[in-house]
Amino acid sequence: MDWLRVTYRLQVDATSAAARAAEIALEQTVEVPRSAIRDAFVTDQILGRVEDVVPDPTGAQLATIAYPAAATAGDPAQLVNVLFGNSSLHPDIECVDMSLPTSLLERLGGPRFGIAGWRDTVGVHDRPLTCTAIKPMGLAPKALGELLRTFARAGIDVIKDDHGLAEHSFCPFEERVRTCLAIVDEVADETGHRATYVPNLIGTPRTLFDQLQVAEDLGARAVMTSPMLIGLPVFWELCQQHASVPVLAHPSFGGAQRIAPALLFGALFRLLGADAVIYVNFGSRFSYSPQVCRAIADRLKADWGPLAPALPVPAGGIAVESASDVVDFYGRDAMLLIGGSLQVDPDAIEARSREFVEVVRRYTSE
Amino acid sequence: MDWLRVTYRLQVDATSAAARAAEIALEQTVEVPRSAIRDAFVTDQILGRVEDVVPDPTGAQLATIAYPAAATAGDPAQLVNVLFGNSSLHPDIECVDMSLPTSLLERLGGPRFGIAGWRDTVGVHDRPLTCTAIKPMGLAPKALGELLRTFARAGIDVIKDDHGLAEHSFCPFEERVRTCLAIVDEVADETGHRATYVPNLIGTPRTLFDQLQVAEDLGARAVMTSPMLIGLPVFWELCQQHASVPVLAHPSFGGAQRIAPALLFGALFRLLGADAVIYVNFGSRFSYSPQVCRAIADRLKADWGPLAPALPVPAGGIAVESASDVVDFYGRDAMLLIGGSLQVDPDAIEARSREFVEVVRRYTSE
Repeated sequence: MDWLRVTYRLQVDATSAAARAAEIALEQTVEVPRSAIRDAFVTDQILGRVEDVVPDPTGAQLATIAYPAAATAGDPAQLVNVLFGNSSLHPDIECVDMSLPTSLLERLGGPRFGIAGWRDTVGVHDRPLTCTAIKPMGLAPKALGELLRTFARAGIDVIKDDHGLAEHSFCPFEERVRTCLAIVDEVADETGHRATYVPNLIGTPRTLFDQLQVAEDLGARAVMTSPMLIGLPVFWELCQQHASVPVLAHPSFGGAQRIAPALLFGALFRLLGADAVIYVNFGSRFSYSPQVCRAIADRLKADWGPLAPALPVPAGGIAVESASDVVDFYGRDAMLLIGGSLQVDPDAIEARSREFVEVVRRYTSE
Repeated sequence: MDWLRVTYRLQVDATSAAARAAEIALEQTVEVPRSAIRDAFVTDQILGRVEDVVPDPTGAQLATIAYPAAATAGDPAQLVNVLFGNSSLHPDIECVDMSLPTSLLERLGGPRFGIAGWRDTVGVHDRPLTCTAIKPMGLAPKALGELLRTFARAGIDVIKDDHGLAEHSFCPFEERVRTCLAIVDEVADETGHRATYVPNLIGTPRTLFDQLQVAEDLGARAVMTSPMLIGLPVFWELCQQHASVPVLAHPSFGGAQRIAPALLFGALFRLLGADAVIYVNFGSRFSYSPQVCRAIADRLKADWGPLAPALPVPAGGIAVESASDVVDFYGRDAMLLIGGSLQVDPDAIEARSREFVEVVRRYTSE
């Protein structure tokens, strides 16, 4: 049986580290209390196992957890989910390392060209490469092209779009790529140095894959995109199933945790189309305060121009026993999500479910 | 002209806050030094403008920056890029709020069903709703279905998949959805209460949109997905261009910043297929240490089972004057990315580019 191993840095003291690690092993796989697991297959083949907890030099604790590779379903999105899905929401947990079995490496595939292929594309093998970007955003294709001409004449190897060059009306993608590739040819004829121009792909999957097709059809020999902006699973699909040229990755949005929860869950998720939004409730195993939860719920429901309100769905460790308080806090327009607390006693699932239902239904009669 | 306004919380003292805010206004739009901007259209219609810098009660500074809506190109990925793309990589900056013009709200669309549509789907209008999840991962469709039966009999309104239920061999998506929807019908016949079953969609765009189609064809009346796992732009496309039923959003991976840079940029980007990876270099305007940068580069190039190595691309404020040191640090297998430093003097772009090229080419002769 294949396992992946993930290391987390825990900001907890040594005495509570093992227990915290055990919680992560549950959270990242079964997401129910240990007592709710009755199935041997789940215990043996799905549940994460704490393998090691050791202090690091900073006084934090490094916990290594093994997960069955089967839990990832061989899918990039589910892999990220198993690595750090819910646990990313805990401020005391950092995901610092992973070790994957060969089966998963082969399944996901990694670079198709890698360093050797990139060097072949650029035509330089014996030294570091030079790279720059045409920018700023706002310039028309012709002006960006002239900048590229200057860089190419100077002998720079790789000239990429700024990662903020999108499908702007003042600088359409196809016109930009066509212009830049033509100038690469002109400078090559003039100087003998053929720079590699790398267009930036950005957008939703449809836009992104269209841009890739256009770039390849026009003769681009490499492309760039920002995996955290477009989504890691889209990036995988782009590399493994769509692109026939090497792909350069940009780090934009790679630090997204510092978005305020009300902005990410309350505004951005709603703006993009969520009709109902799950978030971690206060007083749960997560750390959001009542104020943060109020702000998320308010943001989901507030008047916002032409946008319909979205339903707040507090979750993340609400106990049946506290459902009444949660109802009082959010009022009518909310959906309470209770998971593990219904299953904490295998013999009382229906009874606890009925209790939950009763508490919430009571709201109308008050 | 339409503007969006974004508020950032800066962990800087009051005396340096205005300058820090001005840097963000540049970083999030043109990403070149102010002196490199010579185009009136860029200055007037693209460049961010600091509107306000005020202290907050914690002693941090709240900076509000206005960006021209045109910079977003009306695209979800580019919107996130303008909001918090590169600036997310600074540990002293948190993105805390945004205010968008109506044109952008209308373009992006928000919830198609919202609270009213969700209530219509569930059939409950006058009280909070109840929700739970079928789990743990590892159970077969039949076992999950029996758990659903228990919850439905108890009268719970909405019963969703756990967000970790993917396309697992032990629990295929189609079989799970078919089984659960049949049991919803059976309980409705038996008790009169028709629960709403919400399948979880997870995967790359192809998998995700296939799952949606299967779920809708089988009669699912709502679906769930995790926007940060699948990617915010994919989430938008799912909601606005694919789904005909309401969409529930899950917060998994919503705290991704706490992934160590070597893991995210060095391992995950490579694993998914990047041939070359840009990351912020030490000694630049970003804060990574030489050790972190070494770790990223090592991870990109290290032996890793069947995976090809990927090319390290240090960037983010390398000056032409320091290129030689960067070459010494990384050696042959690296691509130096210098952006603004080539354009800092509009009259010396070609000269500085040539200097950059010379420094790197010199590597071979040493």
